[in-house]
Amino acid sequence: MYVESNFQRVRIDLAYDGGAFAGWAKQPGLVTVQGCLEQALALITRVDLQVTVAGRTDAGVHASAQTVHVDIPRENWARIPGRSKRAPKIALETRLRGAMTRVLADAEAQLGLPSTMRGFMQGAISIHHVSAVSADFDARFSALSRRYEYLIADNSLHQALPVQRLSCWQVESSLDIDYMNNAARELLGLHDFLSFCKPRVGATTIRELRELEFERRDDAVIAARIVADAFCHNMVRSLVGSLVMLGAGERSYEWLLDRIENPQRDATVKLAPANGLSLAEISYPEAAHYKTQAERTRNTRKLPVEKRPK
Amino acid sequence: MYVESNFQRVRIDLAYDGGAFAGWAKQPGLVTVQGCLEQALALITRVDLQVTVAGRTDAGVHASAQTVHVDIPRENWARIPGRSKRAPKIALETRLRGAMTRVLADAEAQLGLPSTMRGFMQGAISIHHVSAVSADFDARFSALSRRYEYLIADNSLHQALPVQRLSCWQVESSLDIDYMNNAARELLGLHDFLSFCKPRVGATTIRELRELEFERRDDAVIAARIVADAFCHNMVRSLVGSLVMLGAGERSYEWLLDRIENPQRDATVKLAPANGLSLAEISYPEAAHYKTQAERTRNTRKLPVEKRPK
Repeated sequence: MYVESNFQRVRIDLAYDGGAFAGWAKQPGLVTVQGCLEQALALITRVDLQVTVAGRTDAGVHASAQTVHVDIPRENWARIPGRSKRAPKIALETRLRGAMTRVLADAEAQLGLPSTMRGFMQGAISIHHVSAVSADFDARFSALSRRYEYLIADNSLHQALPVQRLSCWQVESSLDIDYMNNAARELLGLHDFLSFCKPRVGATTIRELRELEFERRDDAVIAARIVADAFCHNMVRSLVGSLVMLGAGERSYEWLLDRIENPQRDATVKLAPANGLSLAEISYPEAAHYKTQAERTRNTRKLPVEKRPK
Repeated sequence: MYVESNFQRVRIDLAYDGGAFAGWAKQPGLVTVQGCLEQALALITRVDLQVTVAGRTDAGVHASAQTVHVDIPRENWARIPGRSKRAPKIALETRLRGAMTRVLADAEAQLGLPSTMRGFMQGAISIHHVSAVSADFDARFSALSRRYEYLIADNSLHQALPVQRLSCWQVESSLDIDYMNNAARELLGLHDFLSFCKPRVGATTIRELRELEFERRDDAVIAARIVADAFCHNMVRSLVGSLVMLGAGERSYEWLLDRIENPQRDATVKLAPANGLSLAEISYPEAAHYKTQAERTRNTRKLPVEKRPK
């Protein structure tokens, strides 16, 4: 029997400057991305809604491409265009940008920024796209993979650029990118990344790392590209922190191999700062596969027997 | 008769994030770049010093390469290395970076930034280089030319990047760069730029514009390169603002030509926002020419008779 849902599921694609927020997740009394987004949605729909995010980001971590979904009661959905003849999703996109301007102005007042920084929060969240999707779409579980970018300004940059400090890790040594890339290849594939994670109770730390590569851009900034099916908490920052230690000659190739072959919580692993990190892409399958992908993801990832730690 | 000067003239090359300051020039009660630099110098030399800057920048304008000079009494200069065996200029460079860390921490406290932005001011000023120079060197008057960079993120960028809002002007239209560059060429050479300046009493608005070109980078951001012997107040931002109006189809080629052929204060000229602008280079002659260049600069620039406005 087919039952029409009472909700319209909506997908929102957005970007943000993590430096302006106390992280993604809503926290009472703090200015967070989720908090601002839900406030803006409430201003428009007049109902309290909770969004589900593809990749939670920590305080200071940016996103150039983040995805969420939210279920809007059909009644409220239908009212979004008001007297205009626009489709609800077109109206929502426009109105969400307007509401965000107000919410960010309030956030700026709440933060008590000095008058010389007036307008700092405007544009700190950018709404890229709003679409109406089927209830099969799950921003978190339907995702096939996540791509992160990590920027590093090392000593090869003759001169530090103060503006870059907000989106680059400024490292004092000169990094050997080739050495880092050779080591990074050893980490690819399905592994238990416990040595590089802050584990959550009851959750696995097994992930499939698909890409991890450092490239020096024309402006001498090093950009790391990191792709996995999903990441556990702190994983990208730990991997980058560890490889930078190798590139600076502070740790050996063998040390890194031992971390991945003998997974354990490890205080010698260094966390790269949050401000260099940016969530850059969430990949989804064709709409027909939203549901099966979500089911597949929900089955806890398992290592094949021969790769399980002894 | 040769008299040994009682001062050592010192050249300091530095960079800063203009968004963090109420401009270059010292102002009571405000956090400014000059204020922070002079505080750091006073911590080290134990004497109040005043620096002379190559290019004053307005609130919000960045510098990736700024130059100042300062005269340090010989007695204080000799004491800078303390018990170390370093040369005074080497010691000053190291100690200036250390003192700046303290001054910027104090500035952050003065600004009352929220705890989620802790550390925001660290690195907002970067000391690139300190050198001992002859008294002939004048950071302002010995300069041969200034180069500015202006960054624009137009609609050709599919998606706005929130982190970029701090260093790019985000424009809603798609800009026609070729048209802008054709028009920009008409502005090159010696002109009275009164239509594009906020004139200072008793000062000329005649300048020699040497380069003005827009280029789309690989990341789709438009970077303008602007070089002149010197700029009058608001000149770079007015030129960029005017050419962007042309590129967006809001003003004509003829309108621009009229502005340069009939110089007058003009409310139709639009000022591009400060945050897209960065002072990128100050060029100086060989040391032997510091003095003659300074004398040449001090002679007010004059238009040849045939170019004077009727």
